[in-house]
Amino acid sequence: MLSVLMFAATGSAQIQYTKAGEFVLPKDFRSWPFLSSGLGMTYSNNPVQNPRFSNVFVNTKALQVFLRKGEWPDKTVLITEDRASSTHASNRDGRFQTDIAFWEAHVKDSSRGGWSYYVILKTAASAKPQPVSAGCLACHAKNAATDTTFVQFYPTLIEAAKRAGNYRDSGDVIMEQPSK
Amino acid sequence: MLSVLMFAATGSAQIQYTKAGEFVLPKDFRSWPFLSSGLGMTYSNNPVQNPRFSNVFVNTKALQVFLRKGEWPDKTVLITEDRASSTHASNRDGRFQTDIAFWEAHVKDSSRGGWSYYVILKTAASAKPQPVSAGCLACHAKNAATDTTFVQFYPTLIEAAKRAGNYRDSGDVIMEQPSK
Repeated sequence: MLSVLMFAATGSAQIQYTKAGEFVLPKDFRSWPFLSSGLGMTYSNNPVQNPRFSNVFVNTKALQVFLRKGEWPDKTVLITEDRASSTHASNRDGRFQTDIAFWEAHVKDSSRGGWSYYVILKTAASAKPQPVSAGCLACHAKNAATDTTFVQFYPTLIEAAKRAGNYRDSGDVIMEQPSK
Repeated sequence: MLSVLMFAATGSAQIQYTKAGEFVLPKDFRSWPFLSSGLGMTYSNNPVQNPRFSNVFVNTKALQVFLRKGEWPDKTVLITEDRASSTHASNRDGRFQTDIAFWEAHVKDSSRGGWSYYVILKTAASAKPQPVSAGCLACHAKNAATDTTFVQFYPTLIEAAKRAGNYRDSGDVIMEQPSK
Protein backbone atom coordinates (compact mmCIF):
# COMPACT_ATOMS: atom_id res chain seq x y z
CA MET A 1 0.00 0.00 0.00
CA LEU A 2 2.84 2.35 0.86
CA SER A 3 4.38 1.63 -2.52
CA VAL A 4 1.17 2.47 -4.30
CA LEU A 5 0.91 5.77 -2.44
CA MET A 6 4.54 6.61 -3.22
CA PHE A 7 3.92 5.92 -6.87
CA ALA A 8 0.79 8.06 -6.91
CA ALA A 9 2.81 10.91 -5.44
CA THR A 10 5.52 10.48 -8.07
CA GLY A 11 3.04 10.19 -10.88
CA SER A 12 1.34 13.44 -10.06
CA ALA A 13 4.62 15.24 -9.31
CA GLN A 14 3.12 17.81 -7.03
CA ILE A 15 5.44 20.74 -7.41
CA GLN A 16 6.45 22.29 -4.12
CA TYR A 17 7.58 25.87 -3.56
CA THR A 18 8.67 27.51 -0.34
CA LYS A 19 6.84 30.61 0.89
CA ALA A 20 9.70 32.65 -0.59
CA GLY A 21 8.94 31.10 -4.01
CA GLU A 22 11.89 28.71 -4.12
CA PHE A 23 11.46 25.40 -5.93
CA VAL A 24 11.91 22.43 -3.58
CA LEU A 25 13.98 19.51 -4.91
CA PRO A 26 11.51 16.56 -4.94
CA LYS A 27 12.54 14.04 -2.29
CA ASP A 28 11.79 11.05 -4.51
CA PHE A 29 13.14 12.19 -7.89
CA ARG A 30 15.86 9.52 -7.78
CA SER A 31 13.14 6.89 -8.30
CA TRP A 32 11.60 8.79 -11.26
CA PRO A 33 12.15 7.51 -14.80
CA PHE A 34 15.68 8.10 -16.06
CA LEU A 35 16.08 9.75 -19.46
CA SER A 36 19.82 9.71 -20.11
CA SER A 37 23.23 10.69 -18.86
CA GLY A 38 25.97 12.70 -20.53
CA LEU A 39 29.60 13.28 -19.59
CA GLY A 40 31.32 16.65 -19.73
CA MET A 41 28.54 18.27 -21.73
CA THR A 42 29.20 21.95 -22.33
CA TYR A 43 28.91 24.72 -24.90
CA SER A 44 32.02 26.37 -23.57
CA ASN A 45 35.09 26.64 -25.76
CA ASN A 46 37.31 25.87 -22.80
CA PRO A 47 38.36 22.26 -22.40
CA VAL A 48 36.46 20.54 -19.58
CA GLN A 49 38.59 19.65 -16.57
CA ASN A 50 37.21 16.92 -14.31
CA PRO A 51 34.13 16.29 -16.44
CA ARG A 52 30.82 15.72 -14.66
CA PHE A 53 28.07 13.23 -15.41
CA SER A 54 24.59 14.68 -15.79
CA ASN A 55 21.79 12.19 -15.03
CA VAL A 56 18.38 13.41 -16.18
CA PHE A 57 15.10 12.28 -14.58
CA VAL A 58 11.50 13.26 -15.36
CA ASN A 59 8.27 12.79 -13.42
CA THR A 60 6.33 9.72 -14.53
CA LYS A 61 3.18 11.49 -15.63
CA ALA A 62 5.02 13.95 -17.89
CA LEU A 63 6.95 11.07 -19.47
CA GLN A 64 3.75 9.16 -20.19
CA VAL A 65 2.24 12.21 -21.89
CA PHE A 66 5.42 12.87 -23.87
CA LEU A 67 5.67 9.32 -25.19
CA ARG A 68 2.05 9.54 -26.36
CA LYS A 69 1.85 13.11 -27.65
CA GLY A 70 5.44 14.23 -28.21
CA GLU A 71 5.08 17.30 -26.02
CA TRP A 72 5.54 18.24 -22.39
CA PRO A 73 2.38 18.85 -20.36
CA ASP A 74 2.00 21.53 -17.73
CA LYS A 75 3.69 20.49 -14.44
CA THR A 76 6.59 18.75 -16.19
CA VAL A 77 9.62 18.51 -13.90
CA LEU A 78 13.04 17.61 -15.32
CA ILE A 79 15.78 17.10 -12.74
CA THR A 80 19.45 16.86 -13.69
CA GLU A 81 21.68 15.28 -11.08
CA ASP A 82 25.24 16.46 -11.70
CA ARG A 83 27.93 14.16 -10.30
CA ALA A 84 31.68 14.26 -10.30
CA SER A 85 33.43 11.51 -12.26
CA SER A 86 36.46 9.40 -11.49
CA THR A 87 38.65 6.79 -13.10
CA HIS A 88 41.28 4.26 -12.08
CA ALA A 89 44.89 3.95 -13.04
CA SER A 90 44.48 0.77 -15.07
CA ASN A 91 41.69 2.30 -17.05
CA ARG A 92 42.55 4.51 -19.98
CA ASP A 93 39.27 6.21 -20.77
CA GLY A 94 36.53 4.79 -18.58
CA ARG A 95 34.81 7.06 -16.10
CA PHE A 96 32.27 6.34 -13.38
CA GLN A 97 30.17 8.54 -11.12
CA THR A 98 31.05 9.73 -7.63
CA ASP A 99 29.81 12.64 -5.47
CA ILE A 100 26.92 15.01 -6.10
CA ALA A 101 28.02 18.37 -7.50
CA PHE A 102 24.60 20.06 -7.65
CA TRP A 103 21.14 19.61 -9.13
CA GLU A 104 19.36 21.49 -11.90
CA ALA A 105 15.60 21.66 -12.34
CA HIS A 106 13.69 22.69 -15.44
CA VAL A 107 10.04 23.09 -14.52
CA LYS A 108 7.03 23.83 -16.74
CA ASP A 109 4.42 25.46 -14.55
CA SER A 110 1.78 27.70 -16.09
CA SER A 111 1.13 29.23 -12.67
CA ARG A 112 4.71 30.60 -12.85
CA GLY A 113 4.63 31.74 -16.46
CA GLY A 114 5.89 28.56 -18.15
CA TRP A 115 9.39 27.07 -17.94
CA SER A 116 11.71 28.09 -15.10
CA TYR A 117 15.29 27.07 -14.35
CA TYR A 118 16.72 26.32 -10.93
CA VAL A 119 20.24 25.39 -9.78
CA ILE A 120 20.11 23.69 -6.38
CA LEU A 121 23.38 23.57 -4.47
CA LYS A 122 24.27 20.32 -2.74
CA THR A 123 24.07 22.15 0.59
CA ALA A 124 20.50 23.33 -0.17
CA ALA A 125 17.04 21.79 -0.52
CA SER A 126 15.54 24.51 -2.73
CA ALA A 127 16.47 27.37 -5.05
CA LYS A 128 14.98 30.52 -6.50
CA PRO A 129 14.47 30.73 -10.27
CA GLN A 130 17.50 31.67 -12.35
CA PRO A 131 17.19 35.22 -13.71
CA VAL A 132 16.98 35.72 -17.46
CA SER A 133 20.48 37.22 -17.29
CA ALA A 134 21.88 33.81 -16.27
CA GLY A 135 21.40 32.71 -19.87
CA CYS A 136 19.64 29.38 -19.22
CA LEU A 137 16.61 30.33 -21.28
CA ALA A 138 18.63 31.88 -24.10
CA CYS A 139 20.78 28.77 -24.47
CA HIS A 140 17.87 26.33 -24.22
CA ALA A 141 15.81 28.38 -26.69
CA LYS A 142 18.68 28.46 -29.15
CA ASN A 143 19.96 24.91 -28.92
CA ALA A 144 17.34 22.53 -27.56
CA ALA A 145 15.40 20.35 -29.98
CA THR A 146 11.94 20.35 -28.35
CA ASP A 147 10.19 23.08 -26.39
CA THR A 148 13.48 24.31 -24.84
CA THR A 149 14.39 20.77 -23.68
CA PHE A 150 17.42 18.83 -24.95
CA VAL A 151 15.45 15.91 -26.38
CA GLN A 152 18.28 15.36 -28.87
CA PHE A 153 20.24 13.86 -25.96
CA TYR A 154 17.36 11.64 -24.66
CA PRO A 155 17.27 8.73 -27.09
CA THR A 156 14.03 7.24 -25.78
CA LEU A 157 12.12 10.48 -26.53
CA ILE A 158 13.34 11.43 -29.99
CA GLU A 159 10.90 9.29 -31.94
CA ALA A 160 7.80 10.62 -30.13
CA ALA A 161 8.94 14.22 -30.63
CA LYS A 162 9.62 13.70 -34.34
CA ARG A 163 6.30 11.92 -34.85
CA ALA A 164 4.55 14.94 -33.35
CA GLY A 165 6.53 17.38 -35.50
CA ASN A 166 7.95 18.79 -32.30
CA TYR A 167 11.65 18.27 -32.95
CA ARG A 168 14.11 20.74 -34.38
CA ASP A 169 17.50 19.59 -35.59
CA SER A 170 19.70 22.18 -34.02
CA GLY A 171 23.02 21.18 -35.48
CA ASP A 172 26.10 21.25 -33.40
CA VAL A 173 24.66 21.51 -29.92
CA ILE A 174 25.76 20.30 -26.52
CA MET A 175 23.86 20.61 -23.28
CA GLU A 176 24.81 23.61 -21.17
CA GLN A 177 26.06 23.24 -17.63
CA PRO A 178 26.46 26.12 -15.22
CA SER A 179 30.11 26.91 -14.62
CA LYS A 180 31.48 25.64 -11.32
CA MET B 1 -5.45 2.02 -12.35
CA LEU B 2 -3.20 0.89 -15.15
CA SER B 3 -0.34 2.82 -13.58
CA VAL B 4 -0.84 1.13 -10.26
CA LEU B 5 -0.80 -2.28 -11.89
CA MET B 6 2.34 -1.42 -13.84
CA PHE B 7 4.06 -0.36 -10.67
CA ALA B 8 3.02 -3.49 -8.84
CA ALA B 9 4.50 -5.54 -11.65
CA THR B 10 7.74 -3.58 -11.45
CA GLY B 11 7.94 -3.87 -7.71
CA SER B 12 7.63 -7.61 -7.70
CA ALA B 13 9.92 -8.05 -10.71
CA GLN B 14 8.51 -11.35 -11.77
CA ILE B 15 11.40 -12.98 -13.54
CA GLN B 16 10.42 -14.52 -16.84
CA TYR B 17 12.20 -17.36 -18.60
CA THR B 18 11.37 -18.95 -21.93
CA LYS B 19 10.69 -22.69 -22.09
CA ALA B 20 14.26 -23.11 -23.29
CA GLY B 21 15.48 -21.42 -20.09
CA GLU B 22 16.37 -18.05 -21.61
CA PHE B 23 15.98 -14.94 -19.45
CA VAL B 24 13.47 -12.52 -20.95
CA LEU B 25 14.43 -8.81 -20.89
CA PRO B 26 11.74 -7.16 -18.71
CA LYS B 27 9.55 -4.95 -20.87
CA ASP B 28 9.37 -2.19 -18.26
CA PHE B 29 12.95 -2.08 -16.96
CA ARG B 30 13.46 1.42 -18.41
CA SER B 31 11.07 2.75 -15.74
CA TRP B 32 12.89 0.94 -12.92
CA PRO B 33 15.11 2.90 -10.53
CA PHE B 34 18.36 4.03 -12.13
CA LEU B 35 21.58 3.29 -10.23
CA SER B 36 24.29 4.96 -12.29
CA SER B 37 25.94 5.26 -15.66
CA GLY B 38 29.56 4.87 -16.68
CA LEU B 39 31.39 5.66 -19.91
CA GLY B 40 33.91 3.34 -21.54
CA MET B 41 34.22 1.10 -18.48
CA THR B 42 36.54 -1.83 -19.13
CA TYR B 43 39.23 -3.99 -17.58
CA SER B 44 40.91 -4.41 -20.92
CA ASN B 45 44.39 -3.03 -21.47
CA ASN B 46 43.41 -1.96 -24.95
CA PRO B 47 42.31 1.65 -25.33
CA VAL B 48 38.55 1.92 -25.76
CA GLN B 49 37.44 3.08 -29.21
CA ASN B 50 33.96 4.56 -29.44
CA PRO B 51 33.26 4.24 -25.71
CA ARG B 52 29.80 3.10 -24.66
CA PHE B 53 27.62 4.35 -21.86
CA SER B 54 26.30 1.70 -19.46
CA ASN B 55 23.05 2.68 -17.69
CA VAL B 56 22.26 0.39 -14.76
CA PHE B 57 18.70 -0.20 -13.51
CA VAL B 58 17.42 -2.42 -10.67
CA ASN B 59 13.93 -3.65 -9.79
CA THR B 60 12.24 -1.49 -7.16
CA LYS B 61 11.78 -4.18 -4.54
CA ALA B 62 15.43 -5.24 -4.59
CA LEU B 63 16.52 -1.60 -4.28
CA GLN B 64 14.26 -1.07 -1.26
CA VAL B 65 15.72 -4.13 0.46
CA PHE B 66 19.29 -3.10 -0.39
CA LEU B 67 18.89 0.42 0.99
CA ARG B 68 17.54 -1.05 4.24
CA LYS B 69 19.76 -4.12 4.68
CA GLY B 70 22.80 -3.55 2.48
CA GLU B 71 22.34 -6.83 0.64
CA TRP B 72 20.55 -8.11 -2.46
CA PRO B 73 17.50 -10.30 -1.86
CA ASP B 74 16.59 -13.31 -3.95
CA LYS B 75 14.97 -12.25 -7.27
CA THR B 76 17.22 -9.21 -7.69
CA VAL B 77 17.43 -8.15 -11.34
CA LEU B 78 20.11 -5.71 -12.47
CA ILE B 79 19.85 -4.58 -16.10
CA THR B 80 22.64 -2.72 -17.87
CA GLU B 81 21.60 -0.83 -20.99
CA ASP B 82 24.67 -0.32 -23.14
CA ARG B 83 24.43 2.59 -25.58
CA ALA B 84 26.79 4.03 -28.13
CA SER B 85 28.07 7.54 -27.43
CA SER B 86 28.54 10.52 -29.67
CA THR B 87 29.91 14.03 -29.56
CA HIS B 88 29.76 17.20 -31.64
CA ALA B 89 32.52 19.09 -33.35
CA SER B 90 32.34 22.14 -31.09
CA ASN B 91 32.62 19.98 -28.03
CA ARG B 92 36.05 18.86 -26.91
CA ASP B 93 35.25 16.13 -24.43
CA GLY B 94 31.52 15.92 -23.86
CA ARG B 95 29.70 12.77 -24.87
CA PHE B 96 26.01 11.92 -24.98
CA GLN B 97 24.08 8.70 -25.54
CA THR B 98 22.75 7.38 -28.83
CA ASP B 99 21.72 3.89 -30.03
CA ILE B 100 21.33 0.71 -28.03
CA ALA B 101 24.33 -1.62 -28.35
CA PHE B 102 23.01 -4.52 -26.20
CA TRP B 103 21.72 -5.26 -22.73
CA GLU B 104 23.27 -7.19 -19.86
CA ALA B 105 21.33 -8.80 -17.03
CA HIS B 106 22.67 -9.98 -13.71
CA VAL B 107 19.97 -11.98 -11.95
CA LYS B 108 19.93 -13.48 -8.45
CA ASP B 109 17.53 -16.39 -8.52
CA SER B 110 17.85 -19.21 -6.01
CA SER B 111 15.78 -21.43 -8.28
CA ARG B 112 18.65 -21.18 -10.82
CA GLY B 113 21.51 -21.60 -8.35
CA GLY B 114 22.13 -17.95 -7.46
CA TRP B 115 23.52 -15.22 -9.75
CA SER B 116 23.43 -15.69 -13.51
CA TYR B 117 24.72 -13.43 -16.31
CA TYR B 118 22.96 -12.76 -19.60
CA VAL B 119 23.95 -10.70 -22.64
CA ILE B 120 20.90 -9.81 -24.71
CA LEU B 121 21.56 -8.69 -28.27
CA LYS B 122 19.61 -5.74 -29.55
CA THR B 123 17.99 -8.01 -32.12
CA ALA B 124 16.79 -10.39 -29.37
CA ALA B 125 14.28 -10.37 -26.51
CA SER B 126 15.96 -13.03 -24.36
CA ALA B 127 19.27 -14.82 -23.83
CA LYS B 128 20.63 -17.99 -22.31
CA PRO B 129 22.94 -17.76 -19.31
CA GLN B 130 26.59 -17.01 -20.02
CA PRO B 131 28.75 -20.09 -19.43
CA VAL B 132 31.37 -19.98 -16.68
CA SER B 133 34.00 -19.93 -19.41
CA ALA B 134 32.78 -16.49 -20.51
CA GLY B 135 34.49 -15.07 -17.44
CA CYS B 136 31.61 -12.92 -16.15
CA LEU B 137 31.52 -14.65 -12.78
CA ALA B 138 35.31 -14.71 -12.38
CA CYS B 139 35.61 -11.00 -13.06
CA HIS B 140 32.66 -10.03 -10.85
CA ALA B 141 33.90 -12.26 -8.04
CA LYS B 142 37.35 -10.76 -8.22
CA ASN B 143 36.52 -7.09 -8.66
CA ALA B 144 33.04 -6.26 -7.47
CA ALA B 145 32.59 -4.69 -4.04
CA THR B 146 29.38 -6.38 -2.87
CA ASP B 147 28.08 -9.87 -3.57
CA THR B 148 29.56 -9.91 -7.11
CA THR B 149 27.89 -6.56 -7.95
CA PHE B 150 29.81 -3.37 -8.75
CA VAL B 151 28.38 -1.31 -5.90
CA GLN B 152 31.58 0.78 -5.93
CA PHE B 153 30.19 2.42 -9.10
CA TYR B 154 26.66 3.01 -7.71
CA PRO B 155 27.07 6.00 -5.39
CA THR B 156 23.58 5.79 -3.88
CA LEU B 157 24.23 2.24 -2.61
CA ILE B 158 27.70 2.47 -1.12
CA GLU B 159 26.65 3.73 2.31
CA ALA B 160 24.07 0.98 2.87
CA ALA B 161 26.57 -1.71 1.84
CA LYS B 162 29.30 -0.34 4.13
CA ARG B 163 26.88 -0.01 7.05
CA ALA B 164 26.01 -3.68 6.64
CA GLY B 165 29.68 -4.69 6.43
CA ASN B 166 28.95 -5.93 2.93
CA TYR B 167 31.46 -3.84 0.97
CA ARG B 168 34.93 -4.80 -0.10
CA ASP B 169 37.37 -2.20 -1.34
CA SER B 170 38.70 -3.91 -4.39
CA GLY B 171 41.33 -1.43 -5.43
CA ASP B 172 41.83 -0.64 -9.02
CA VAL B 173 38.69 -1.98 -10.58
CA ILE B 174 36.58 -1.00 -13.55
CA MET B 175 33.33 -2.60 -14.64
CA GLU B 176 33.68 -5.27 -17.27
CA GLN B 177 31.92 -5.04 -20.59
CA PRO B 178 31.73 -7.89 -23.09
CA SER B 179 33.91 -7.21 -26.09
CA LYS B 180 32.03 -6.13 -29.20
